[in-house]
Amino acid sequence: MKLSQATTMLDAAHDEARRRGVRVCISILDAQAWPMAFIRMDGAPLGVIDVANRKARTAVLFQMDSADFARIGHPAGEAYMLEHTNGGLTSFGGGVVLRAADGGMLGGIGVSGASTQDDIDIARIAAATLVA
Amino acid sequence: MKLSQATTMLDAAHDEARRRGVRVCISILDAQAWPMAFIRMDGAPLGVIDVANRKARTAVLFQMDSADFARIGHPAGEAYMLEHTNGGLTSFGGGVVLRAADGGMLGGIGVSGASTQDDIDIARIAAATLVA
Amino acid sequence: MKLSQATTMLDAAHDEARRRGVRVCISILDAQAWPMAFIRMDGAPLGVIDVANRKARTAVLFQMDSADFARIGHPAGEAYMLEHTNGGLTSFGGGVVLRAADGGMLGGIGVSGASTQDDIDIARIAAATLVA
Amino acid sequence: MKLSQATTMLDAAHDEARRRGVRVCISILDAQAWPMAFIRMDGAPLGVIDVANRKARTAVLFQMDSADFARIGHPAGEAYMLEHTNGGLTSFGGGVVLRAADGGMLGGIGVSGASTQDDIDIARIAAATLVA
Repeated sequence: MKLSQATTMLDAAHDEARRRGVRVCISILDAQAWPMAFIRMDGAPLGVIDVANRKARTAVLFQMDSADFARIGHPAGEAYMLEHTNGGLTSFGGGVVLRAADGGMLGGIGVSGASTQDDIDIARIAAATLVA
Repeated sequence: MKLSQATTMLDAAHDEARRRGVRVCISILDAQAWPMAFIRMDGAPLGVIDVANRKARTAVLFQMDSADFARIGHPAGEAYMLEHTNGGLTSFGGGVVLRAADGGMLGGIGVSGASTQDDIDIARIAAATLVA
Repeated sequence: MKLSQATTMLDAAHDEARRRGVRVCISILDAQAWPMAFIRMDGAPLGVIDVANRKARTAVLFQMDSADFARIGHPAGEAYMLEHTNGGLTSFGGGVVLRAADGGMLGGIGVSGASTQDDIDIARIAAATLVA
Repeated sequence: MKLSQATTMLDAAHDEARRRGVRVCISILDAQAWPMAFIRMDGAPLGVIDVANRKARTAVLFQMDSADFARIGHPAGEAYMLEHTNGGLTSFGGGVVLRAADGGMLGGIGVSGASTQDDIDIARIAAATLVA
């Protein structure tokens, strides 16, 4: 994944967040979980900086959206407490795996600061720019 | 435990994982929880590196398989949140105590990357080479 | 400082880095040392992500450019080992204090990945957009 | 880099260490600094486990051998204290960049436990198997 693709995603996520009237942080990591690009919108709570990063990290490290990860790390799931590995992961929605048109994993995006459903929607809209 | 025993276990676990068509990380620690040997199979998700290490560490530090540990650390168990001690342990299966033929503890092995049951099976098959 | 000012700085730093043919990470923190925006240029070594962040953090926490900080933290300086406080700071150039036209501190920028002099120059050119 | 290449390097390093009568840890990381394979020889001091890992990490993150890194992180060097970034790096020899025949970076190897010169030699002999 190139920086130009990451900044296109940042812009798409930022635009969508403004349209919904929410204030989020957006974090984009490459396929090995290294930071590529990040922005914090004016007025986003400080605590969601870390949450956005962890959502993206969760998506990359386990190659699944953080909403799916939540199910296996739940007390009734197959891998209870899995979110405590890898320095602390995030087991709720807003982290989305980034894939190329051919399905290959390119990285992960994490959005945090709005409702979980808004965070997920914004992340998916941004991720879709990779295959547009 | 000698390195030659650890690498024999790595080979046995690796062979069994290939036979099952799964991609795992395998971590072997000595009886004092220090790393002896590790491999990551091609294509294993990056997040399971840490999980394999923590499973092995859990088995050594509490002298019980991580699947048994899961029962006492579960919300309904005797020692809820025990997995948050010792820098973070893992409360699901795939960490197995390594024992000599006389029952003495030699260390722990952690396998992660497949289903929990596959992880457990692979770890046990590897551990069995110590008493073969 | 607003996100729009931070992204203007990112763009200016990015443009200047391309002009010099270097590949850097650029990190912008607010006046309380919280992340606002970050990019990693294609091809920058992974180790400079953290260095860029620490340079910016050093500039904000001690309200001085990291090149000045280096003098007081040096073995011959007034506060040897000061860089080991605050989770680890950076005692060489490339972190620059961000100031408004009236001199008030707005935050810090860290640039890393090129020569120390290039890093400093790029950071200063970006910082100058705040008072243009 | 494939696991088979990493284990070939481990074997080569292990053989060379035995030939010299030294006991080392050998750590191999991929090009994004994620662990691929590790062994600790019988009798190696426990403290060198971490040193081997950090040497390999230093080589990968800054795309230079740790002996070269030592020069720029030295009090008289361009980036004094650079080794305190990225969770702590190692500024002496024994971490070597792994390259393919075409010069592309494949990862890093770290060897620790013998004299610095032995560590460097063993790492280089192992790295040479990638282009043999």
